[in-house]
Amino acid sequence: MPATPLLDQVNIPADLKKVDDSALPQLAAELRSEMVDAVSMTGGHLGAGLGVVELTIAIHKVFNTPHDRLIFDVGHQCYPHKILTGRRDRIRTLRQEDGLSGFTRRAESEYDPFGAAHSSTSISAGLGMAVASELSGTQRNVIAVIGDGAMSAGMAYEALNNAGALDARLIVILNDNDMSIAPPTGAMSAYLARLASGRTYMGFRELGKKMTAYLGKSVDRAITRAVEHARGYVTGGTLFEEMGFYHIGPIDGHSFDHLLPVLRNVRENAKGPVLIHVVTQKGKGYPPAEAAADKYHGVNKFDVITGAQAKVKPNAPSYTAVFADALIEEAAHDDKIIGITAAMPNGTGLDKFGGIYPSRLFDVGIAEQHAVTFAAGLAAEGYKPFAALYSTFLQRAYDQVVHDVAIQGLPVRFPIDRAGFVGADGPTHAGAFDTTYLASLPGFVVMAAADEAELKHMVRTAAAYDEGPISFRYPRGEGVGVDLPARGEVLAIGKGRVVKQGSKVALLSFGTRLSECLLAAEDLDAAGLSTTVADARFAKPLDQDLIRQLARHHEVLITIEEGAVGGFASHVLQFLAHEGLLESGLKVRPLILPDTWMEQAKPEAMYAKSGLDRAGIVSAVFKALGQKDLGVGAAG
Amino acid sequence: MPATPLLDQVNIPADLKKVDDSALPQLAAELRSEMVDAVSMTGGHLGAGLGVVELTIAIHKVFNTPHDRLIFDVGHQCYPHKILTGRRDRIRTLRQEDGLSGFTRRAESEYDPFGAAHSSTSISAGLGMAVASELSGTQRNVIAVIGDGAMSAGMAYEALNNAGALDARLIVILNDNDMSIAPPTGAMSAYLARLASGRTYMGFRELGKKMTAYLGKSVDRAITRAVEHARGYVTGGTLFEEMGFYHIGPIDGHSFDHLLPVLRNVRENAKGPVLIHVVTQKGKGYPPAEAAADKYHGVNKFDVITGAQAKVKPNAPSYTAVFADALIEEAAHDDKIIGITAAMPNGTGLDKFGGIYPSRLFDVGIAEQHAVTFAAGLAAEGYKPFAALYSTFLQRAYDQVVHDVAIQGLPVRFPIDRAGFVGADGPTHAGAFDTTYLASLPGFVVMAAADEAELKHMVRTAAAYDEGPISFRYPRGEGVGVDLPARGEVLAIGKGRVVKQGSKVALLSFGTRLSECLLAAEDLDAAGLSTTVADARFAKPLDQDLIRQLARHHEVLITIEEGAVGGFASHVLQFLAHEGLLESGLKVRPLILPDTWMEQAKPEAMYAKSGLDRAGIVSAVFKALGQKDLGVGAAG
Repeated sequence: MPATPLLDQVNIPADLKKVDDSALPQLAAELRSEMVDAVSMTGGHLGAGLGVVELTIAIHKVFNTPHDRLIFDVGHQCYPHKILTGRRDRIRTLRQEDGLSGFTRRAESEYDPFGAAHSSTSISAGLGMAVASELSGTQRNVIAVIGDGAMSAGMAYEALNNAGALDARLIVILNDNDMSIAPPTGAMSAYLARLASGRTYMGFRELGKKMTAYLGKSVDRAITRAVEHARGYVTGGTLFEEMGFYHIGPIDGHSFDHLLPVLRNVRENAKGPVLIHVVTQKGKGYPPAEAAADKYHGVNKFDVITGAQAKVKPNAPSYTAVFADALIEEAAHDDKIIGITAAMPNGTGLDKFGGIYPSRLFDVGIAEQHAVTFAAGLAAEGYKPFAALYSTFLQRAYDQVVHDVAIQGLPVRFPIDRAGFVGADGPTHAGAFDTTYLASLPGFVVMAAADEAELKHMVRTAAAYDEGPISFRYPRGEGVGVDLPARGEVLAIGKGRVVKQGSKVALLSFGTRLSECLLAAEDLDAAGLSTTVADARFAKPLDQDLIRQLARHHEVLITIEEGAVGGFASHVLQFLAHEGLLESGLKVRPLILPDTWMEQAKPEAMYAKSGLDRAGIVSAVFKALGQKDLGVGAAG
Repeated sequence: MPATPLLDQVNIPADLKKVDDSALPQLAAELRSEMVDAVSMTGGHLGAGLGVVELTIAIHKVFNTPHDRLIFDVGHQCYPHKILTGRRDRIRTLRQEDGLSGFTRRAESEYDPFGAAHSSTSISAGLGMAVASELSGTQRNVIAVIGDGAMSAGMAYEALNNAGALDARLIVILNDNDMSIAPPTGAMSAYLARLASGRTYMGFRELGKKMTAYLGKSVDRAITRAVEHARGYVTGGTLFEEMGFYHIGPIDGHSFDHLLPVLRNVRENAKGPVLIHVVTQKGKGYPPAEAAADKYHGVNKFDVITGAQAKVKPNAPSYTAVFADALIEEAAHDDKIIGITAAMPNGTGLDKFGGIYPSRLFDVGIAEQHAVTFAAGLAAEGYKPFAALYSTFLQRAYDQVVHDVAIQGLPVRFPIDRAGFVGADGPTHAGAFDTTYLASLPGFVVMAAADEAELKHMVRTAAAYDEGPISFRYPRGEGVGVDLPARGEVLAIGKGRVVKQGSKVALLSFGTRLSECLLAAEDLDAAGLSTTVADARFAKPLDQDLIRQLARHHEVLITIEEGAVGGFASHVLQFLAHEGLLESGLKVRPLILPDTWMEQAKPEAMYAKSGLDRAGIVSAVFKALGQKDLGVGAAG
């Protein structure tokens, strides 16, 4: 562990008050090395936190947290903040089961007044808090720290628009590192780059005049010195000002000489909404991160000296990679295929697609709503857009899926990555609800891939299907290791498949638990319970013939899916009820995700806890039959 | 019917090409009177269409629709467009069963390339179409007409941000009437008002220089004359230009002398994205509309001469009014109660609340995402925000509900208006999915009001409940006429009630179909089928005791709700399955909305079609029992 004599004296922000301004660079260096050391052991988000070390220290130094509210947008840059707010003793449990979250969390600390993980929520939440403090007559600063990438999302704009009109005392710190997960795109990003490039810098005199007018009194000497030192490094940005914000910046986010006087001045004098434009460098101060293209956005465990990350040997290609390869394959056959990503070219695998078909890939920024309706516009003109989003982020575009795609019956394709448990990222990133909220929509085709070969079939099926919207979900991580066909096949819409025929118990899987069903069937067969295993493939339309067969010819019917209530099982039950197939004595047991926000852990542990693994399936069968779990096979 | 000699010669836009520019004002006058006459018979959206008569004519005159794509945002301003695009013969069927939709619809006409009804989708869709035309090498103009109110929504910003960066040839016409459904709020609105007020008007010479630079050649004589005439009535708006758009305007949207040269110039010369800022007057040209505060946004049938609208005599107060009164009552007891609306103060009834508690009402603009997270910020500080949204618009904020409210367990209250069928507004406004997408979230309390007294109880229950998020749905229209308590009671969370005890058949209602259940029970009792009727009140948490009782002591269990699959019934079935209560021979039949996008009609007709009325319930019972419908009572 690195030597951190100064940091050792700072357990909570109150301790910071005793540290002289001049010692803060040393504190920053120690905080950086502590964080690098911790993340080298846990893996996690590294680059973002490194970029805001000085900013985090400066905020806690100047403001009175937790009475003043500090909200980190997204929250993956909060590791330095956690170290400074009483959580250093647990910092090496980051993202582990029962450890610290990789994001801010209300339940974890009073210094996290608003949790996050999805982007662009901080200004809205901060405005709510600022209004609350006004209504209750409490003197309180509310500070939202938001990245430039997050500014491409509509809800950030909605919040600016409202805050500018309400004239509430809200401090927005725009952390501009010109780099979110991927380089940001969009006109706003270009605008910020123009500001930061100095083309529109305001002269020193203008600045003084303007701040004086705004603050109602002469500008602090310290800030004028800082500004002078930075050669007029402060600007009036017309766009944010037109939105009703007072706009200060860009200032150097790694210089306490810039940060402290500006923050102190704002603390003392701000009346309405203020936006401070701070320029930082992602990965700052750790050479391997600075040198890396992604600035070590997310890393595995690594060697602190060399920066070399631990390589995890995969057993099979990742679902994401299989999807990308399959889409590239289909695109070679069909020039109408378009890839769309919302600022996740790497996470969705579409960067590879874009490398081969650059004119057919659109990265629209963190803008899922626009992504989906943009796709609908393309589909209306006969193109075949694949709007590839994570399950949890597709929630951002739910109304667009309903209103612009489904009601119009437009054939937009929805590859849904990260469906189901995601492990260390925890409940904010889990994909639990997509089947529920999509399969309820009339005319939607909803698929789930049981393995990576199935995923290839589904990519091809989606490419071939022009009748309306179609989705296919697949999980985070690697496939199960099945042989991959060179190209997928076109599946019959609404048809499942029987993988193994038995006679007493039927296991009907939707999605990735099929392999566990096959293992469970081994145990059940061994216990004398002849077991059928089927892969539904479709939650909508249902394979009614298959379900009728399973219901009529088995004593127990287990459905299993990695999703919440209201999804596949609900469609099956609704069908069985109206067919009168439930009143024959059939023991039906729908296995779904538990009705809790499941905390971060290894996926295997989460499956076990949810009863969605081999043992859980076997146990559900025994329970349905009124038998004690007999301890056979893995169920023991 | 008004005399319309010129309009009679214009059936489709191609006919417009034969009309001289100088005759267009006459055509506008005739189109206006035709539209007023039609809407006086059907009711519908009047003010918005009146405001865009000249703009609609000018677009169809200058552009080559349907080859050129014209997208109306929201679409409720499209009646003049429908009259000009081959649908005049059906214009008096607007919003009636089997008649024209009140919005644009792809299925209705090739002149409606993208349907709408929800706000702020047009720029995204238009960008998709513009990109498609570029990819396919098609010469095509894409025009999106969007109101200033719609510019407060995040997805419009997301689309501008992407369009500005893509540099696609997209024409956005900002129809600025400073009035959407309610006066718009927000910084953008104030900004537009400043532009239109002339404070930032660009001088004529500047304009000429700028347009020449942009268009790459000397500015057309006609446009310079138009501009001269309007005293430099064209500006360069920095905000849109910073977003990558070329910005023309404001220009007078009722003057063909302004509209035609600008549109022609853009048609000939535009290269990248253009935003034309057009100022119009909602309700223009019909004095009663011009004089009305809401500009006759939505009207009943009315007298053309006087403008007097037909009064519909209500049998009972509307659910919306009951909600508003109940919230006002609770607010008198609890100063932590806050009302939040997304540009619907009147539609949600919160205008009345705001009249009494102005500092406790927040109209955040058309910005549902922000509304919900803003509410979450307030809730985090101990306030009790009621984020009152229509069911269909809450879809816009689904991720915020999940990520900012539910995962954090924040006690935001969600009054959900327009839940279920909405009649004339059709499928885009129906509230079918809220129970499905909310009740799947861990920790959410999900209620539905069976009548207006129940609604009062639920408002009070929500005010009293601080443990986490809570929602209550209620329909459009008037209550069933029950007596109203002065103040609601606090309901026990997760407890339903038996309204009528029987022994053979159980009808378990969630929400508004309770009164139909009671009528159906009369028929069933009369047929010798002793019937229990229960009101579930809660879809989550379920009243497990009640459901167990009903399942164990009846032969038939019917659930009924005005919602899609995955909702209340699915929770009941999931519970019954795991309790082993389905294998006893119980005949369970979940009645839900049909799996189609149901077209506009009178609600009664929609209920009948869905089997959710008295006759449908009785019929479901007989069918479950394997009996022919015996023709008793209303079921006959």
